[in-house]
Order: sequence, then C-alpha cells, then structure tokens
Amino acid sequence: MASAEAPLQQAITVGIVGLGLMGGSLAAALRHAWPEARLLGVARRPETLEGAVSVGYVHDGATAMADVVPHCDITVLALPVRSILAAIPEAARLLKLGATLTDLGSTKAEIVAVMAHSGRAEACVGGHPMCGKETHGLQAATPDLFQRATWAVCPGRSTSPEAIHAVTQMARAVGARPTLLDAAEHDCVVARTSHLPYVAAAALARAVAAGTRPEDIDLLSAGGYRDSTRLAASDVAMMRDTLMTNRQAVLAALADLGGELAALTALLQVADEPGLTAYLERARRSRRST
Amino acid sequence: MASAEAPLQQAITVGIVGLGLMGGSLAAALRHAWPEARLLGVARRPETLEGAVSVGYVHDGATAMADVVPHCDITVLALPVRSILAAIPEAARLLKLGATLTDLGSTKAEIVAVMAHSGRAEACVGGHPMCGKETHGLQAATPDLFQRATWAVCPGRSTSPEAIHAVTQMARAVGARPTLLDAAEHDCVVARTSHLPYVAAAALARAVAAGTRPEDIDLLSAGGYRDSTRLAASDVAMMRDTLMTNRQAVLAALADLGGELAALTALLQVADEPGLTAYLERARRSRRST
Repeated sequence: MASAEAPLQQAITVGIVGLGLMGGSLAAALRHAWPEARLLGVARRPETLEGAVSVGYVHDGATAMADVVPHCDITVLALPVRSILAAIPEAARLLKLGATLTDLGSTKAEIVAVMAHSGRAEACVGGHPMCGKETHGLQAATPDLFQRATWAVCPGRSTSPEAIHAVTQMARAVGARPTLLDAAEHDCVVARTSHLPYVAAAALARAVAAGTRPEDIDLLSAGGYRDSTRLAASDVAMMRDTLMTNRQAVLAALADLGGELAALTALLQVADEPGLTAYLERARRSRRST
Repeated sequence: MASAEAPLQQAITVGIVGLGLMGGSLAAALRHAWPEARLLGVARRPETLEGAVSVGYVHDGATAMADVVPHCDITVLALPVRSILAAIPEAARLLKLGATLTDLGSTKAEIVAVMAHSGRAEACVGGHPMCGKETHGLQAATPDLFQRATWAVCPGRSTSPEAIHAVTQMARAVGARPTLLDAAEHDCVVARTSHLPYVAAAALARAVAAGTRPEDIDLLSAGGYRDSTRLAASDVAMMRDTLMTNRQAVLAALADLGGELAALTALLQVADEPGLTAYLERARRSRRST
C-alpha cells in the first residue's frame, strides 16, 4: 500500500473522452493543477476537439479512442452513463499496463459491473464528481467546477490500490473531496439527493405550464419558481441515461414523493390546519442546508 | 383621473403594520426612496419596534394600530394573510379621510373581499410584491428586496384612483414594477408559480429525508438538492396562511403535479426510453427562465 500513498507523478498523460461540460471542465482544471501533465482529448466531432485545443484545455487529441487511450496513464470517460457503458470494453482493451480507467458518470452500479468484466478490472474505478450546471457543452466548461464538490470514488472488488490512488489524487488536485463509496449505495443515495430533485423539477415545470400562460409565469414568478425548476433545464440525454440506469431506486423515491404530495393534498382538502402546520414544520426541519 | 397621475407628495406618513422581513424591508427601502416621509411601525412585541427604530428603518411606532394608523397617509399591513384579514376592519376604521390602506399578503381574493366590506372600500387596495427570502424577521430585512420585483396591485370595484395611485407610486419608489391585476386571477397564477413550488419543495425535502441518512444528504448532494428544496425553509406561518386562503387553486395545481409525476413514473416503470426523452424535452422547454 506504500505506493498508494505516494504523491502522483504530475508528468503523466491524462486522456479525457468527451469534452462537454464535465470533461472540458476537468481538462481546464487539470491544466492549472498539474501543469506538467499532458492532456489529450477525445471528441466525436473534430470541431469540439479543435475548440478544446484552441482554448488550451487539452494539448492534443483525436476523434477515436484508439489514437489516445494507449498513450494515457489515466483515461477518464466523461460521457452520459450509457455512452460510458458502451465505451468501457474498448477503452479497457486499449489501456496500457499500469494505467487507470475511470469515469464521471452520474450512476455507478452498472458502470462498476461492466468495468469488473472488462478484462482490466484491476485498472478500473468508477467516479462521480457531485457538481454540474444546467448549461452544457465545452463553452460552459469552467476550471472551478469541482471546487469543494464530493467526488464519489467507487472501486470494484478487483480494483488495485494504485488505480484508486490515481483517481483520488486527480480529484483532490482539482479541488474536489474524494470519498470511497460502494457503487450500489451511491446509486441509492443519489436517487434521492439528485435524481428525484431532477424529476420533481421536470414535473413541476410541466404542472406550472399546464395551468398558466407563459407571459403570466414571466410576470408573476420569483426566485422560488426559478430555483425549484432549475434542474428541469438539465441536459436531457445525460439525465435520461442517469434515470434509465437507476430506475428501481428512482421509482422508489418517486413513490415516496407521491405519498408526500398525497398527504399534503389530503390535509389541504379537509383544511386540517394543525396537520398542515405540523407537516410544513417537519419538511422545514428535514431540509438539509448543505 | 388627473390627480392619479401627479407624483405623490413625499412628505407623507407611512404606517407599516408588522416589521418582519417584508415590512422591515419596505421601511428600509422607503427611508432611502422617500427621505421626507415619516415612517411609523406597528409591532406586537416592543423589542421588535425598538429594533426597527434603532436601525433607523422607522422613525417611531407603537404596539397598537390605534396609536399609528390615524396619523398615516398610507397604512401597509405586512403580516401573514390571515392576520391581514383580521386586521383590516380595525385598520379601516382607524384610517383618516383620504388615506390609503394596502397590504403585502401572498394571496389577494379574500383580502380584497374583506377590504370591500370594511366600510372604507374606496381607500383599500390589495398588494403583493413578488419577492421574498427563506430567512425571516426584521434582521433579514434589506432595502433592496423589491428591486425589479413585480408588485401585484389588486383594487376592489370601489377602490379610488387615488388609492391605486398611492400604492403604485410607493411600489415604484422602492424599485418594484407595479402591475394592476384582478385578485382572483392573481391567486390562480401564483398557485402555480409560487405556492405549488413551495409545496413541491416541502414534499421533496420529506421524500429525500425519508430514504436517506442526514449525513448522506450532506455528503452526496449538490446545488440541485439545495435549490429545489430551498422553498421548504420558508416561514411556516406565512405559507400556511397562504395555502389556507388559496386552497382550491393550490389543490388543482397539486392534482396536475401528481398527474405529471404519475406519467413520469409510468414511463420509467416500463423503461419507455423514447417516451421518457420526449417528456424530459417538453419539461425542459416549458420551464421559463425568468
């Protein structure tokens, strides 16, 4: 375990597959944090790659993993979850000896399972920085995105201490707080703290729009509407993948939310004022001001 | 109507009944906006009044409306909605000839109805500045609270142009945007844009807490949880009064939200990916970024 405690050599090559908000921000942050590291990008569209090179987020890159991953000490899959799942087998096959493969996906159980069966289980570790914005794409990237964010690190059973160390060091380097977590436990918690707020915001945006003219929303809304529907503006492909790979936990959370709304509705229907007051007080206390 | 267009004489006396976040902020804002006005406060507790005088928000005041309202050109009831309803008859009775009575309550139909039967219908006009914070009390008051906020102005059938003018001028003086609105229409719209986001945030805070340990919420949540549950921290007495005086419109909005969540649940249950994508896209587009 001694090697796992040593500071990571900065003069390494990091490959970032996907140069959207998360991948672009990681590249931008690593340029500052690890000035000696060589940063390579992989983007489907050549224009995206050219953009990332021209703003100095990566030194070079390619449109195919085969041209980048073999040169990397750490490869980071920064894609929607199911694109990560699809990319793991090829990335693992291309990985050089001693290199690490990780990701930035929002759910972890399926990813860690596929990593475990990639043939390079020792090199693979799941990762999830708990940060984001409703803007997306490279132009929304910012080097400070990870500051003070929890970065869940989810190893498989066969993951080497060196791979965990590499990801932990990288997370710390960009200002995040790495936390070792079981993948299934991670998914159950974020179903409540992240995915449920998203589906609630989407449903709320629809319910407000259903009974109100757009110009009335603009005129008669304030910070409450804006904040509580903000997540509805998230990237749809990313969130669809997130929900589709965490269905059972999200459905359980949705059932609880439905129950809470039914309880509130019942209190209002019969104008049960003490009950309503007690409910709202409990809700006020159960909210964590993180 | 000529008099309704004239700029309001600044050297008037304004009485603010209730010195919490809203009343305290209005007093603070008027001290800047109308330096020649005399500002009088009414607070139930003498300490609150002394606090408001000592920070310079009001010049003087009392714990009883009878000692303040007869001296005022404009009296503003800055209380939870049902305390406003209870205060209107006495305030109207104390109001001097030519003076105006208004309020800052979150629902308007019941208030405007009670104003119409107060014996001083011509002097009364409902008001609702669409702003707020989750902190409350005088110590949370700030003179810039009303900047760029819509200030709904809801007259009754017998309200005089002069009363509407007084409230409109006061709203504009503190940086808000006064908008004439029918009280019932106001209540229907804010049931969606304000009260539904609040009850959704309360239910969400409960549903997250139901399936998660507090320390896990702290560790594995980000801006999404914080923003989407923020309204759950609102003042309970204020929100209870708001909901209790807008029950039918809130119940209709809650039914729509329940329907949206049921639709989302059904899509996830059968893993209908095209349907889920379409739903999330519609939600994304229906959100107004105000």
